[in-house]
Amino acid sequence: MLIDRLVKRIQKTSAPIVVGLDPRLGQVPSHIKEKIFAKQGRTSQAVADIFFAFNKEIIDNIYDIVPAVKPQIAMYEQYGHEGFECYMRTIEYAQSKRLFVIGDVKRGDIASSAEAYSAGHIGRLNIAGENIETATANFITINPYMGQDSVEPYLEDCRAHDKGLFVLVKTSNAGSKDIQDLPMQNGKPLYSHVGELVSKWGEHLIGESGYSAVGAVVGATHPEEAAELRKAMPHTFFLVPGYGAQGGSGKDLKSLWQGDKYGAIINSSRGITAAYQSGKFTTSEKDFAIAAREAVLEMKADLMAYM
Amino acid sequence: MLIDRLVKRIQKTSAPIVVGLDPRLGQVPSHIKEKIFAKQGRTSQAVADIFFAFNKEIIDNIYDIVPAVKPQIAMYEQYGHEGFECYMRTIEYAQSKRLFVIGDVKRGDIASSAEAYSAGHIGRLNIAGENIETATANFITINPYMGQDSVEPYLEDCRAHDKGLFVLVKTSNAGSKDIQDLPMQNGKPLYSHVGELVSKWGEHLIGESGYSAVGAVVGATHPEEAAELRKAMPHTFFLVPGYGAQGGSGKDLKSLWQGDKYGAIINSSRGITAAYQSGKFTTSEKDFAIAAREAVLEMKADLMAYM
Repeated sequence: MLIDRLVKRIQKTSAPIVVGLDPRLGQVPSHIKEKIFAKQGRTSQAVADIFFAFNKEIIDNIYDIVPAVKPQIAMYEQYGHEGFECYMRTIEYAQSKRLFVIGDVKRGDIASSAEAYSAGHIGRLNIAGENIETATANFITINPYMGQDSVEPYLEDCRAHDKGLFVLVKTSNAGSKDIQDLPMQNGKPLYSHVGELVSKWGEHLIGESGYSAVGAVVGATHPEEAAELRKAMPHTFFLVPGYGAQGGSGKDLKSLWQGDKYGAIINSSRGITAAYQSGKFTTSEKDFAIAAREAVLEMKADLMAYM
Repeated sequence: MLIDRLVKRIQKTSAPIVVGLDPRLGQVPSHIKEKIFAKQGRTSQAVADIFFAFNKEIIDNIYDIVPAVKPQIAMYEQYGHEGFECYMRTIEYAQSKRLFVIGDVKRGDIASSAEAYSAGHIGRLNIAGENIETATANFITINPYMGQDSVEPYLEDCRAHDKGLFVLVKTSNAGSKDIQDLPMQNGKPLYSHVGELVSKWGEHLIGESGYSAVGAVVGATHPEEAAELRKAMPHTFFLVPGYGAQGGSGKDLKSLWQGDKYGAIINSSRGITAAYQSGKFTTSEKDFAIAAREAVLEMKADLMAYM
């Protein structure tokens, strides 16, 4: 099962790390931008090609030391269909380098729409009886607000096509308190109830690693809540955003680990892909992807120190 | 302000109706499909062109009697970038016919990603200092689970570019009970708390109609909850899915109306666009868009009977 293969890859690399591929023009080195803008003008297609060139060089320099990448689709989708195509091209390229891809799409809708999202992002496309090969992520993130019937179509595709999910439970942003922390009638915060639902949704999809194909998004910026959820959800693999640029550190994460089975994969985006701008690593623009590799190795050391 | 113009258009047409453009191959008449598949093969581009041809004919036959259309992006996005391009082409065409467009995208993410979604869907695209003209919806739907800081980028674009939002509060699907109905510590269900937040988010964006640019999604399938939310949120315009194919009827909606200012716009998708398949209207495939118009007029009469 996919989740077991992810756990094995984390064990092999000793890197419970996913590199967030959330390109922004301000973080792409000038030599990449200038060349493509000069040829194509300042168009959405140019941005898509710039983002792909940037992603490709990052991937080429980290694929042997991390198990996964996580493109944030918002960064691509804002550039329309050209950006969307770059998102899919990035998935294909990452998978050609044997990286697992977590598509950070956070979709959530009624079942008939969820079926469509699922078909496009992790399932299969069938056009009037003909199966069409498309680039699909290995995992996607989804939003649980609309309830179980809005999640079921994804569960079916997880089962049928060996894919996985990470459902939002307690997110890394400060505003997550506004709804996710609201106390329920039993005194517990909403996120702990959502955590229970997520465990239940995943209970028939548990692999030999002991983890379910249905994971949870739990922010690194809330260490106490994360520790509480870790205890309550022993069979749920966590995708943990909020490390690095958003404020979380290795120390904040120590309660998340479940021995050599890890139990969590930690995302860093800007902290790795824009490492050359931080002053902490190689600072030459041309070597931006070498700086990214240095940042991965530093992150790995930081995580390992508390495992 | 946009919301005032929507209210005026509803008053002028006496039709608080939005037509959901959620195309599915099974609902597109054969003559459209066969012609395009024959030329292009069974490809995503062919589906995109089929969906556009279908949408165009629907729009041409209803634009003078309804104020708005609502494309559900999942139906397009599943066909990759070609589908995404068709979603944007549909927005452009509908607006060229003076229809308001509600992009049913239900996005929700941390602020930096929300900025990107907002730029692409309702804001402006700026590529290295150059403003790029793109098709943007007038309104979009968004998901509130991640809290206020995940919503603020959209509020800024509403202010800057005269756009609007509909935030999920109580959705039309049965599974909405799983999270949205959970009782909070004060005994009230979660959705009523989310309703309060949505009112607050919109309080500085109220137009001369008395309604805010920040609306709420409230399902037609839960009449009691809808009535309760209507009372609690007098300045919030409602987008109401769940009419027709999902089970809601005009009678279920009567508590939603606020006199000649209406206060809600009711969505019907399949019930209108696939009306020719229902047996209740013109049944000829060639006349599918005439059946759609007949279905709009019937829906209008049903709503009016209870207003």
